[in-house]
Amino acid sequence: MKKLIIVFTFLLFFIVGCGKQNSETTNEAEEENMDHSEPIFPKGEKGSSEYFTGNAYNYGLVSIDSVYTTLVGNVYFEPGARSNWHTHPGGQILIITDGEGYHQIEGEPIQVMKRGDVVKCPPNTKHWHGASPESSLQQMYIVPNTEKGIVNWMEPVTDEVYTNVN
Amino acid sequence: MKKLIIVFTFLLFFIVGCGKQNSETTNEAEEENMDHSEPIFPKGEKGSSEYFTGNAYNYGLVSIDSVYTTLVGNVYFEPGARSNWHTHPGGQILIITDGEGYHQIEGEPIQVMKRGDVVKCPPNTKHWHGASPESSLQQMYIVPNTEKGIVNWMEPVTDEVYTNVN
Repeated sequence: MKKLIIVFTFLLFFIVGCGKQNSETTNEAEEENMDHSEPIFPKGEKGSSEYFTGNAYNYGLVSIDSVYTTLVGNVYFEPGARSNWHTHPGGQILIITDGEGYHQIEGEPIQVMKRGDVVKCPPNTKHWHGASPESSLQQMYIVPNTEKGIVNWMEPVTDEVYTNVN
Repeated sequence: MKKLIIVFTFLLFFIVGCGKQNSETTNEAEEENMDHSEPIFPKGEKGSSEYFTGNAYNYGLVSIDSVYTTLVGNVYFEPGARSNWHTHPGGQILIITDGEGYHQIEGEPIQVMKRGDVVKCPPNTKHWHGASPESSLQQMYIVPNTEKGIVNWMEPVTDEVYTNVN
């Protein structure tokens, strides 16, 4: 039952973003102030303030099914925006396609992520990710082994944690 | 034994490309003549003429392991370059980040792929992919469920098949 609730919450968040696939970049996305170039994907749907601090937008690329068992999407974080702390039962792979951001696994220092970087977070490991204060971030995510679950959301990342970059 | 040979052949092809992760775009990559912008990832290692027609370069992003069971990488196809026909036991997801290319599942028409497109090929389904004749292609690939296998290479794509675009 708990698993069902998690999957349903997740689907609610991504269902609109997954509706428009294989399309060209929209005019709206082209008008965004990006660091390097025009965005690859449309901006997507704004993430709930229940799970994000600041403005983060999700665009679904591959939805959940039993064949590929892999969820893929793109998140555009505005400067200063970040996810809450959370875990993924099957782990997560992040691929940065533009801008600069932060990733932190609980108990470890903040890791700075830049265009071209690949970051992995192991299964059931508490982490958060988002843009740096001065730059936006274009971040693709891959959640493998979706039969194990997708995401378990936790508390927001405080300003104290977010600004503790060495 | 057959599975071992397939995995070994695959590892030989990707081992150099996987060696350099989380790095910035190289000068060599920046000098490439791209369609939209500077490449996100380094150019990578040239694919064997045993498996590719023309010049295709692979850069590994996530290598095979038992935790994520997901292989991720980027292929840069020069104009006219394409893979041989092949299958993936766990299927494949392609994400186009720049340029224009072709994807064809056996028995179906050629599908034109552009920046921002997402294309899926089901498990054990014969297909090929590559750049169009006039444009290069930057193509990320995701191979899920790698415990089922990675790739089974087959015959080259003839010019007759490659040029049969409606």
